[in-house]
This record gives sequence, structure tokens and C-alpha cells, in this order.
Amino acid sequence: MNSEILLAPELTLIDERFERGVAVGIDAETGLITRVTSGTVGAVPLPRRALVPGFVNVHSHSFQRAIRGRTEHRTGAEYDTFWTWREKMYHVAQSLTPEDIHDVARMAFLEMTLAGITTVGEFHYLHHQPDGTPYADPNETAKAILTAAQEVGIGIVLLQCGYTRGGFDRPLHPGQRRFCTPSADVFCANLESLRAEARVGVAPHSFRAVPLDYARQLHAYSRRHELPFHMHISEQPRENAETLAEHGETPLDLLAREHMLDRRFTAVHAVHITDREIDELGAAEANVCACPTTERNLGDGIIRADRLFSRGVTIGFGSDSQIQIAPLEDARALEYHLRLDRLERVALADAHDTRESALATRLWRCATESGSRSLGIDAGTIRSGAMADLFTIDLDDVSIADAEDDALISSIVFSLERTAIRDVWIAGRPIVKERHHPLAGEIVSRFQKLQRRLWT
Amino acid sequence: MNSEILLAPELTLIDERFERGVAVGIDAETGLITRVTSGTVGAVPLPRRALVPGFVNVHSHSFQRAIRGRTEHRTGAEYDTFWTWREKMYHVAQSLTPEDIHDVARMAFLEMTLAGITTVGEFHYLHHQPDGTPYADPNETAKAILTAAQEVGIGIVLLQCGYTRGGFDRPLHPGQRRFCTPSADVFCANLESLRAEARVGVAPHSFRAVPLDYARQLHAYSRRHELPFHMHISEQPRENAETLAEHGETPLDLLAREHMLDRRFTAVHAVHITDREIDELGAAEANVCACPTTERNLGDGIIRADRLFSRGVTIGFGSDSQIQIAPLEDARALEYHLRLDRLERVALADAHDTRESALATRLWRCATESGSRSLGIDAGTIRSGAMADLFTIDLDDVSIADAEDDALISSIVFSLERTAIRDVWIAGRPIVKERHHPLAGEIVSRFQKLQRRLWT
Repeated sequence: MNSEILLAPELTLIDERFERGVAVGIDAETGLITRVTSGTVGAVPLPRRALVPGFVNVHSHSFQRAIRGRTEHRTGAEYDTFWTWREKMYHVAQSLTPEDIHDVARMAFLEMTLAGITTVGEFHYLHHQPDGTPYADPNETAKAILTAAQEVGIGIVLLQCGYTRGGFDRPLHPGQRRFCTPSADVFCANLESLRAEARVGVAPHSFRAVPLDYARQLHAYSRRHELPFHMHISEQPRENAETLAEHGETPLDLLAREHMLDRRFTAVHAVHITDREIDELGAAEANVCACPTTERNLGDGIIRADRLFSRGVTIGFGSDSQIQIAPLEDARALEYHLRLDRLERVALADAHDTRESALATRLWRCATESGSRSLGIDAGTIRSGAMADLFTIDLDDVSIADAEDDALISSIVFSLERTAIRDVWIAGRPIVKERHHPLAGEIVSRFQKLQRRLWT
Repeated sequence: MNSEILLAPELTLIDERFERGVAVGIDAETGLITRVTSGTVGAVPLPRRALVPGFVNVHSHSFQRAIRGRTEHRTGAEYDTFWTWREKMYHVAQSLTPEDIHDVARMAFLEMTLAGITTVGEFHYLHHQPDGTPYADPNETAKAILTAAQEVGIGIVLLQCGYTRGGFDRPLHPGQRRFCTPSADVFCANLESLRAEARVGVAPHSFRAVPLDYARQLHAYSRRHELPFHMHISEQPRENAETLAEHGETPLDLLAREHMLDRRFTAVHAVHITDREIDELGAAEANVCACPTTERNLGDGIIRADRLFSRGVTIGFGSDSQIQIAPLEDARALEYHLRLDRLERVALADAHDTRESALATRLWRCATESGSRSLGIDAGTIRSGAMADLFTIDLDDVSIADAEDDALISSIVFSLERTAIRDVWIAGRPIVKERHHPLAGEIVSRFQKLQRRLWT
């Protein structure tokens, strides 16, 4: 196996423990981890480095990187909310050419690799021209995003988003025209041709944006091909009110009745859901994608991760609006928002589990293994045969430097700064070396040109 | 003025705006900014860098860096809180020699400089030997911390903490013995000799930990010498209950009646306070030190910064427990916790103020100018005659790279990663160059040795 590279870090995260004297073989041809061995002969030594599995970013709208820092002010409305933010987001969504979509996606994906993210689930809805007319190639913008991921070197699962309407009995907002593919058959035909060249998932936007029949057809397609099935669920109370008005049920109750909840399903956000809906997610062994850094920025609310865990629901993280691209800040916020709500500490560790690493390990798994499950990939863990998606942590970085014992994972989850993330391998290929990505200069300068055009 | 160095960054933050073509003169002999000029002849060019004033860290317990990552687990108690955390913190506080206190302080101060912090307010209470016996020099540990700051090169205001008891009618906890200086006269005598060699402030720990008369004497001393007067206020509901039980009033009501509230006063935390107490702080033009990254970690609660601002209270930030040393994460949390509470956006900008930079500028001022006011120093702003405490931001860092317009301050406050912080000058001296501090290796390795001894 002469395309194998053997890495010998000082510490390697295997399951829940940092092990010494372990070497990890990776192969850029297969993209997989070839072996995890105690023999380090011929290995590349990585002194003062811990080797860990890459983060999986379950829910990304890469184009929203273009509005970072552009929506943190009063708009003149009586009070600002998710809905006033959405107006500005739509304005930018309308202004982007396929080339722009490629350029901003590269910018977001570049930052993701520097943050240790090795696979992104891109929830894609900028499908058509601003007036809603499909491009000559109906998958032109999807392909622009796939090209961006390929150029940056990040793994991607394209979560193709279905969208048909502004809401129950509500006409399309002008800013939504380019999202819409009215026919589910056309949507599935477009996705079928994409599926030949990329890892994909099926994502009816929400029950606000699609009628039940449309969701049924997309779900049937996802079941036939065993694809991930993602949907925005209860990010804002108003979504629930609209679904209740149209269907007499909340989104997850409706999905449960329709037998659309299973291990392939991911509820994105799931902030405003009932105990019964949490039980339904648990019974179906379904996934939730929490986006706490976005949800705190948009004023969405606090996800009840404690109850979700207690019912066996798997929780992954998404950078969503890209206000921050920081999976561990999402992990902290998932825990901390509950501490603030209860005025207690250690909200997400089981009461009987007093192991020092219990809470941090659970949060770390959310950012890695759980995200992989949600996207239907075999990553987020260091194991022979899994994807060779890895990064190194500098054990002497001031944010985590400490004795290398059971407390290390807690220091990493609760205190690590990006300066500690040094080298990143994706599918066995070195993508970031000592925090440097070879395309960074070009990607950033093109993005800066785009921003000047958009905002001045 | 041949000891002047003239810096010519691409952008310079003057008041609320990033200006081009400005040069800033700094003098390591006086420690001050000599001039802010449009003439850049002979200046050191800083291309692709923004020059900004350093952060001021109002409230630090540097020794608590030793428990980072060591308290994020269940202890076996029915539920974990601030009070179970405190047990572990006391255990470590008891274990540290003056040399250890120096070593852990250097580690915390090193990270602060790399985070752009140029002055720290060290709230110091590890005064005596573990059994409470004073050291031969009663200021030995204070001097160990001052030496640590001097070696790292960070500015420091030593907030000498007065402590006499475990609580109203409650004996000393064994872990509190070394904090206690029963006589206010002795406390003031010790502080008097420190005052000759360092910038100091007076800090009765809290109304739990000192009787009213003791607080009165310390306040009289602080008034006589016009020193900052800091006190922990209402971090936990229990503190209020105890003060009510002893005095029939809440802490701030008591301070107001005693005429101890003025511009020199800083209430640390002030989470659980009434509308009347907020009005009292505003009427006195007093300061609050919020520590949101600590308060979310300890489950203290959410500070009502909106009402505090509306009453004209000045809010600064403290890294407190050192779980994170990240002033901008404190800024985000101050705003975001209110967004989650209200399910609205832009909680801390005035309704009528729709300037794109309004909210970010207010939060930035908290981390700089307001902190300076709380510590009684002239820093946190780029102005001739102010302290030459500055750092540079890499305008091409992926976390903030964008067009350089009014949105830049928002990108910095809401999205900046530590990788963007490059060079730091403190009192006119270059302390960090391209993210490198010359003592980093030695400081980290000594800290790692200390941690191994403490935890294994």
C-alpha cells in the first residue's frame, strides 16, 4: 500500500481517550484510514500534537458568509427579529451570480477547513436566476458550490433544498423566486443527475415553504436511494403556528404521522418543539442539527438538548448563517444556554456519570460522529476504514496547554482557540499545513472584491 | 523625541471610525501615545493591518487558570452549581505556593496578551499561607503576581481583596483561611506599602465575606487616595439573601445608603439586581464589570445590560475564572444572552440608532474604554497622551476579511478569531510580534509542570 502515509502524533483520540504511541495510516487514493497501529516505524512524527477526527458541519448556507457583520444593527423596525434579518439576507441572495455563489462558498469553505471542519452539509436553495427562471443547466449553482468545495478540498454533502412557496396561502416573496422548483418531479430529475457526480441529500426547506405532497414525493425519493433527509423544523414559533393552521399539527407530529421520521432524518434547529415531538424523534432514532451560534445571533431560542439526549436523539452542529464558523463554540453554547436557563452547571452530562471527561466527550461527539451520522458518511472517528478526515491540535497552545490527562478533552471543548488547530487532512490529503491553506490569498482577495461590489 | 516609534497601519480606529492614512506615535519611555497624525513620513508601515486600542480586562483571578477544564463534570451532588464549583476552586487555591501563584499568573497573563488584552485588573485574595498565617512579607503573593505581570509585559492594576469571614454568622471555610485579613487597619497598611510600587485598587470581596464596618474602612481608604473600589455584587441569588438577612437590604441598596457608590465604584457581576439598584448605579455614574463567559460557565445568570445601559451605567468585561480569555466572546455573550431571552435581535443598540456600527461600537467600548474607566487608567482609546496600549488586526484573516467599511467593526466584534490578532504593544513596548511572545515557551512549560503536580 505505497500511497499510505503513517502519522505518529504524540496523542491520538481513539474513542473517548487520548492514547500515546499510536500511529494512524491514511491513504489519499482511497481517502480512508488504512490502519491504527502501535507500530510507528517509518511514521511521520508529530511531536506536541494531538490527532483528532475532523469536525462535521451538518448545516451550512455558504452564501450567508457575505452578510457576516452586515445585520448587527437596528433596521428601524419597532424591534428586530429573525424576520427583519431575513429581508437583508434575501436582498443578498438575489444579488449573487453563479460565479459569486462559487466565490463566497470558497470563502466559507476555506474558513471551515481552518476551523478543523472536514465535511460540510451545504443546504442549497439558490437554484435559479433571480426571477426564478432556471439556468440553462438547472444544476449550475449546485455545481458552482461543488466546484468550490473541490477547489478548497473540503468534503461536501449537497443537501438539495426543495422550495415552492412563501407560506401557507402566502404568495412568494420576490426574494424567494430563485429558490423555487414548483414540480417535485423536476426537482427529483435535477437531483438525479447531480447524484451521479456528488454525495447528496434531500431537503424540503420546511413545511412553510413546501406543501405536504411535495414533501412526500421528496421523502419517497430519499427513501428509494437511502439519502439523508433534512428539514428546517421550528426555528421560530411562527413556523409552528403556520403548520398548525394548515395541517392541524406541528411539523414533527406531521412528519411522524406521515412516517417520515427515521435514522436518515435530521430536524434542523428544533428549538420550539413539544415533549411529544422530542419523544417522536427519539423513537425514530432521528437526528437534530443544532446551530447555537446562529440561533443566539438570530434570537431563535434555546434548544432543549438535555431532554433530546435523554430520549436518545443524536445532535450534530451546523454553522448555518456563518456568523461564526466554530464548532466548539456551538458545543459550548449548547451546554451554556441551559446553564443560564437553570442557574446550574453541567446540564448535559448524566447525573450518575461523574467521569471528568463525560460532558466534554458527549459535546465532542456531537461535533464529529453525530454530524457524520446525520450526513450519512463514515467519518468523525479515528478507526481503520473510516474516512481519513483528521486535524492536529497544538498541545502547547496557550488556550489548552495543560497536563495531557483526562482533562484535555474538557480543555479542548470549553477553551480551545483556533490558533491551536494546525494541520488538516481531508480524505487522506493534506489540505491545511501549520494553519496555512495554499489558496487562502486568492480566495480571500476574490471575496473582498465581491463584498465591495455588493455593499458599496 | 528620539524614543518615539511612528506606526502607519492601513486602518486606525479613531473614536468610532476606521481611518486611512493615519500614523500613531508611541513612546516606550513615557508609555504614552505621542501623537496621532496624518503625516506618515518615517513611519513603520503596517500594510493590511488595522491598529486598535488594547482590551482592558477588569476582573481576573489569574490562579483559576489552573482549573480550566477541571470542573466541567458532575461531582456526584444532586445538581452542580457555582457552589460545587467553588469547592474545587478552593482546593486548588489551598495548594498553591507563592512560586506557583507566580507561574499560573504568568500563564494567564501570557494568554491575555495574545488575546489583545493590554491591562488586567487582578482581583487578588490568595494573600496568606494556607493556614491563614501571613508570609514574612505580607505582600509576598501580591508581589509574585506583580512580578508575573512585569515579566509578561502586561499592564496591571492590583485590586487588593479584603476578606474576613465565611459569611454572616458562618465560620471560615478551611479553603478561605488564606484569604483573610481580619483587621482593616492591617489590610490598609499592607496596601499602603504596595501602593508605593504598583497601581492598586481596593476590593472588599463581597458583603458575604466582609462586615459593613470593614467595607466602610476600605472605602474610606480608597476615597482618600482616589483608588478604584471594586466588589462582587449579586453573582448568585444566595448572596442577596444573606445580605438581606444581615442588613435588611440588598448589596447595592446598602452601598447606596452608605454613600459608597460613585464613579470609582465597580459592581462585579451584578446579575441578580433590582430595577432600583440599577437606578442607583446609574445615578452614581458607577461601573459594572460583566463576565459573561464565566457567568455562563458557572450558571450565574444573565446580566440585564439593556437596562443598565439605559440608565447610563458603564459596563466593562472581566475574564474572571479564565474558562476563556476572550473579550469579544464576552461582548457577544452580553448581547446574545438577551437575544435568547427576548427572541429578538440587536438588544443593546438604541431603537432610534440605525447606524450599521452602533451596536458593535458600544460593545467594543465596553471591552476598551469602559474597562479603563473602571480601573482608573487612561487607555482603551487611540489619542495623543493616552497609554500606548495597542494591537493590530490582520485585515485578511478569514474570520473578518471583507470590504473595509462601516461593517468592519461589526465583523470584528461578532466574528473575529484570535488568529487575526498579530502584534501587541503595551506602554509603547512591543510585547507580541506576529502572535509570538518571546517567553511563551518557558511560561507554558513551567505551567505544565505545575499542572502535573497539582492534578496527578
